[in-house]
Amino acid sequence: MVGTGPAPRPRVVIVGGGFGGLAAAKALRRADADVTVVDRRNHHLFQPLLYQVATAGLSGPDIAHPIRRILKHQRNTRVLMADVKSVDRARRVLVLADGELGYDALILAPGAVDQWFGHDDWAEHAPGLKSLEDALEMRSRMLRAFEAAERESDPIKRAAWLTFVVVGGGPTGVELAGTIAEVARTTMAQDFRNFDPKTARVLLVEGLDRVLQAFPPELSAKAKRQLEALGVEVVLGRRVEAIDANGIQLGNERIATRTVLWAAGVRASPLLATLGVALDRGGRVPVRDDLSIDGDDRVFVVGDGAAIVSEGKPVPGVAPAAMQMGKHAGDNVVRLLRGDPRQPFRYVDKGSLATIGRKSAVADFGRFRCSGFLAWFLWLAIHIVFLIGFRSRFVVLFEWAWAYVTYQRGARVILARGE
Amino acid sequence: MVGTGPAPRPRVVIVGGGFGGLAAAKALRRADADVTVVDRRNHHLFQPLLYQVATAGLSGPDIAHPIRRILKHQRNTRVLMADVKSVDRARRVLVLADGELGYDALILAPGAVDQWFGHDDWAEHAPGLKSLEDALEMRSRMLRAFEAAERESDPIKRAAWLTFVVVGGGPTGVELAGTIAEVARTTMAQDFRNFDPKTARVLLVEGLDRVLQAFPPELSAKAKRQLEALGVEVVLGRRVEAIDANGIQLGNERIATRTVLWAAGVRASPLLATLGVALDRGGRVPVRDDLSIDGDDRVFVVGDGAAIVSEGKPVPGVAPAAMQMGKHAGDNVVRLLRGDPRQPFRYVDKGSLATIGRKSAVADFGRFRCSGFLAWFLWLAIHIVFLIGFRSRFVVLFEWAWAYVTYQRGARVILARGE
Repeated sequence: MVGTGPAPRPRVVIVGGGFGGLAAAKALRRADADVTVVDRRNHHLFQPLLYQVATAGLSGPDIAHPIRRILKHQRNTRVLMADVKSVDRARRVLVLADGELGYDALILAPGAVDQWFGHDDWAEHAPGLKSLEDALEMRSRMLRAFEAAERESDPIKRAAWLTFVVVGGGPTGVELAGTIAEVARTTMAQDFRNFDPKTARVLLVEGLDRVLQAFPPELSAKAKRQLEALGVEVVLGRRVEAIDANGIQLGNERIATRTVLWAAGVRASPLLATLGVALDRGGRVPVRDDLSIDGDDRVFVVGDGAAIVSEGKPVPGVAPAAMQMGKHAGDNVVRLLRGDPRQPFRYVDKGSLATIGRKSAVADFGRFRCSGFLAWFLWLAIHIVFLIGFRSRFVVLFEWAWAYVTYQRGARVILARGE
Repeated sequence: MVGTGPAPRPRVVIVGGGFGGLAAAKALRRADADVTVVDRRNHHLFQPLLYQVATAGLSGPDIAHPIRRILKHQRNTRVLMADVKSVDRARRVLVLADGELGYDALILAPGAVDQWFGHDDWAEHAPGLKSLEDALEMRSRMLRAFEAAERESDPIKRAAWLTFVVVGGGPTGVELAGTIAEVARTTMAQDFRNFDPKTARVLLVEGLDRVLQAFPPELSAKAKRQLEALGVEVVLGRRVEAIDANGIQLGNERIATRTVLWAAGVRASPLLATLGVALDRGGRVPVRDDLSIDGDDRVFVVGDGAAIVSEGKPVPGVAPAAMQMGKHAGDNVVRLLRGDPRQPFRYVDKGSLATIGRKSAVADFGRFRCSGFLAWFLWLAIHIVFLIGFRSRFVVLFEWAWAYVTYQRGARVILARGE
């Protein structure tokens, strides 16, 4: 017999270096496989703190870490920065913007993108908040609005510069609106000569009848009161009819504003449409209980792109769910490679938190619910613990402590080029 | 007699919120005048540390501070974010991109811009380092080059991605080249699977016969040895003949590289050409000994845009000189408003420092000269003390200490949009 060398190791490809993709990669750290993580970006983003970058409290790099640094000690894993355009399941390859990448097993964790519910023309006037670039764009718009107000002598035009409308009453919208109101009332207090920043209006617009729909109604009510204490006008049950450069139409009322921020809806990454399976209304792939897609044992979908019901409830599009799914899909790929039976996924809901400004929040841990400063402290502790890497945890903690004591914000920088 | 109200206060306008402009504004803090600081940016930039942002060691906001925050307690002073297009001395107004601004006295501190010595087409392939956007562009190019190398299977093409050429042997070029060599050898050491980052080539190209021309020759020689110890190839006495997307022509030799960084020359801001006075070869305004321009007692020029000789030597284009000139021009405007005689400017040279990587530098304080770790420590201490604002000092110190201990860099983020 002639030696043919060792059999080639199976190729496991993970698309996306977010919470789901990283958890999948880590689950595969001891697998006898060549693991590849592909992402369009070089960095993992701690999305729960993106609103802090958008409101000039943190720098982009504080919440972004090179994916290859996070995985550098995992010797069976390489990281490629590449743009995945489509999945060709027949040939078992990913089609990249500049090449191809073959796989034997595939875990898709491409995340979500903003959607403007069929009004893509609103995107230009009401940017969303999914990437670091989005956050820097929001930061520039907010800071530029105050700069423009300082130069504007017409009080009507100045009022439009000093009106900030946040669309969408979920956690991101609540966090953005609360923080902008605080920035205007505290950080900016002494910085202008031509107007008083306290006169800035911050509106939070929600089409349904309460903010934080995912929380119990009494916490929604508390969140509304806390927002109002910060000076936010909470507008409920009003539909957005139009958005342009000079204002927003809410039902019959037009509000003159130069700054509209969008936190009203996401859909799953368009990459999933190339799988050739039926998607749900949010663009998600209905996955089987082992997180693989119908009719293909080699392809798994996790995170915001996966539609799955666990214990009778749809699994929400939040970071802890993505991490749990990512780990589970990674474990199932290990089982697949060994020829063991795959296991069904079960979501463990560890509770929800949403923060409202610098000293308030709401927390829902099922039987235990709270709001106010205690909830805020819990939120702070949990977010710091979950931030990846010591440096970031320390710097973020310091920046928060400093901002808390002084009401200052460390990242009040307007960049000129595109963000 | 009928009362006519108080006489209007004189309007003093300062163009530029850099070291010179801020020093001028502070000198005017007790003046009985309406002071306006105008800048295209909302932030003052600590330019001596810009190379740290370009090499992913610091975040942009670490070295950038809102001008209006720095001056917020100075009640006679307002800050406007506006783009000054020209000076109309006949009408005593500044023409802005979107308006006009009248002055009774004017201090111009618009700084310098990069120049490619008549080869503006090189700018695209060899970006300079004057603004935060420039630094983020350099950071993206450096990090993308390593990412591209990981994906490149052709060893010749990969070598071009792993060749970094810094043009210009002044302090900025020395700092950039030394730091990139260190990043490749330490920070990146374990992060790639397809090549060894230690094989990256870093070239520092200087047309004259030594680096750091402003320093004594023996310190230039020491700097060269320190750079070589870090792995930098120092190429002296070679002219750049051409730069394109795939390489650089040095005399007769072509070097294949995908990353060329420009630190070879600046000229004064083009705004000064609108004054209608003769400029020197570097675009600077030859000022009189009180820093005003010839034939106009109301207009002063300070910083990189002013050409002046003090004690027989031209005043260099460095931050301490800009600060001294700014303060002096501000004091002379106070004298002008009071009708007192203006005083001549005298430059006090406090010495020069240039750093070379994470533990070396050269220092020239006239009689006292040193190099190596002591010089580096001096450099660190002086830069931290001069950074404006406690937060920044603390964060920067911490990021340095952390980077020093771990060889990691905190800002390894590639942004997609334009920078």
